[in-house]
Amino acid sequence: MSKYLAGVDLGGTKIACLATDLEGNILVRDQRATGREAGPEAVITNIRAGITSLADRVGKPLADLVGIGIGAPGPLTVETGIIHSSANLGLVEYPIVDAIESYFGVPTFLNNDANAAGLAEWRLGAGEQCRNMLYVTVSTGVGAGLILEKKLFMGSHDFAGEFGHVTAVVNGPLCGCGKRGCLEAVASGTAIGRKAREALAHGCPSVMTDLVNGEIEKVDSRIVGEAAAQEDWLAGFILDEAIEYLGKALADVTTLLNLDRIVIGGGVSKIGDRFIKPLASVIRLYAMKELAEVVEVKEAALGDDSGALGAICLVMEEREGR
Amino acid sequence: MSKYLAGVDLGGTKIACLATDLEGNILVRDQRATGREAGPEAVITNIRAGITSLADRVGKPLADLVGIGIGAPGPLTVETGIIHSSANLGLVEYPIVDAIESYFGVPTFLNNDANAAGLAEWRLGAGEQCRNMLYVTVSTGVGAGLILEKKLFMGSHDFAGEFGHVTAVVNGPLCGCGKRGCLEAVASGTAIGRKAREALAHGCPSVMTDLVNGEIEKVDSRIVGEAAAQEDWLAGFILDEAIEYLGKALADVTTLLNLDRIVIGGGVSKIGDRFIKPLASVIRLYAMKELAEVVEVKEAALGDDSGALGAICLVMEEREGR
Repeated sequence: MSKYLAGVDLGGTKIACLATDLEGNILVRDQRATGREAGPEAVITNIRAGITSLADRVGKPLADLVGIGIGAPGPLTVETGIIHSSANLGLVEYPIVDAIESYFGVPTFLNNDANAAGLAEWRLGAGEQCRNMLYVTVSTGVGAGLILEKKLFMGSHDFAGEFGHVTAVVNGPLCGCGKRGCLEAVASGTAIGRKAREALAHGCPSVMTDLVNGEIEKVDSRIVGEAAAQEDWLAGFILDEAIEYLGKALADVTTLLNLDRIVIGGGVSKIGDRFIKPLASVIRLYAMKELAEVVEVKEAALGDDSGALGAICLVMEEREGR
Repeated sequence: MSKYLAGVDLGGTKIACLATDLEGNILVRDQRATGREAGPEAVITNIRAGITSLADRVGKPLADLVGIGIGAPGPLTVETGIIHSSANLGLVEYPIVDAIESYFGVPTFLNNDANAAGLAEWRLGAGEQCRNMLYVTVSTGVGAGLILEKKLFMGSHDFAGEFGHVTAVVNGPLCGCGKRGCLEAVASGTAIGRKAREALAHGCPSVMTDLVNGEIEKVDSRIVGEAAAQEDWLAGFILDEAIEYLGKALADVTTLLNLDRIVIGGGVSKIGDRFIKPLASVIRLYAMKELAEVVEVKEAALGDDSGALGAICLVMEEREGR
């Protein structure tokens, strides 16, 4: 079999593409700028160029490309293949599936980026195809993908998994969604970095200042994690606050859904043990005992490939008629 | 067709039984004391007597009884038909399905009481067979049943739906489950009644005192609801606090699962508009906008029959191979 699949992880700054064989083994990668500043048509042109480049480098004709998957920021509708509005992409009511499918003549499937990444971790990564799993990505924002009874769960209007917008703090800080105190507003990588910069600007002593050579504006969640791992008090305090919010919210989901596994991905998860271990403890503290005992908390396994691999998994699921 | 089904709603104080035709139309009812004080065998004898009484009064032979459903407090395992432990029933690791199935020679199915009631509301009541629905019962405790993609969702170990044990108040009052600040500990009928009695015992003026002729110990959530409907300040304050906790937790589930409908049942829901309307407002306040716009909040439609009808629905689902 020389057939292959293409997956597109469409982000605000870059487009990451992958070609794999029909089992999801990676053949080649492509990465290029999204180019949203040049308008919607430029973004589509760049996606097409990425896929064409994959085909060229795989060294197989486009006729052997049997499916294309796209993971994109929502809100979007899976069935119609339309992205309703994405500030990050500059696309409004855009029929992205049509634009790609008609160009290549290859069946194309769209889903939310966090859903796609969750599906990839479930099929090919840390989820190990367990029965019920929540994938959470903690990076610029907080997103999630739910696998229930071994299938991607999308809710009644493809909106499920908006875990970043559960209310962590009543009357808390304003979130980009318009609500107050969303988990994303208090526990995302963005929130962690902002809190650290505020504390440093107020003169709070911390090893973080040295880690950025005094350029406080360069402090982000990665620096907070690095300093926390060195037992810096301020970094630990800020990180633990975010962990408390995330852990309590994850515990509530565990109690409601009786999950086997929670998989944590995204930039902040790269902090590693100093993030994942206390997070697992907080989940166990707040989840109902019988449910806390059966849930496993794991770090995501696929790294930066999870988005594009997830797009590939969308195609695999469709081909299997799942 | 003269075939019929039997449903058993097994509670701590009473056993409610129903016989229906194969479409769920009620033929006869039976109700008797659980008799848990006389031990496990007495409880089983009472269940058998209830079902036998149904058959007698339906006027059809037991050979025409084609399925028995049982809704019972958990934790339990659906597959093995075992109730693991129920303080309310005095049953420990009890094979209740075996005990009923072998006696009548009729296929028997077990599930959690809130799951069963949720299934009944979904199939026959306020759920109207929508795609994704949460049924919440607010009475002595707070329970829930989840219908996802038109199927009862039970999680990996039949524990799903423990909505009463999400954390509403960090370090809040101790819950019967051993955790602190569970929704059940701050927003159940029990909690509402207790708070009202405490306030009245402290001399807070309220029409509730008159409603119970000064016998403050008789104040329960029904009295609180009645007084709140009369615009009594104290009753309104206590009820609204519970509504705030319930509404925020329901909003978080809405945001995570993109539900079509939330159905509210149990004794406290009988308060009616003074409970359901502000609850729906709080859900809309805290849920993410796109998700709040598409969820409908409804009062349960089946009243006190929901438990036994739910047990009937367990059989109907099995017979349909769902």
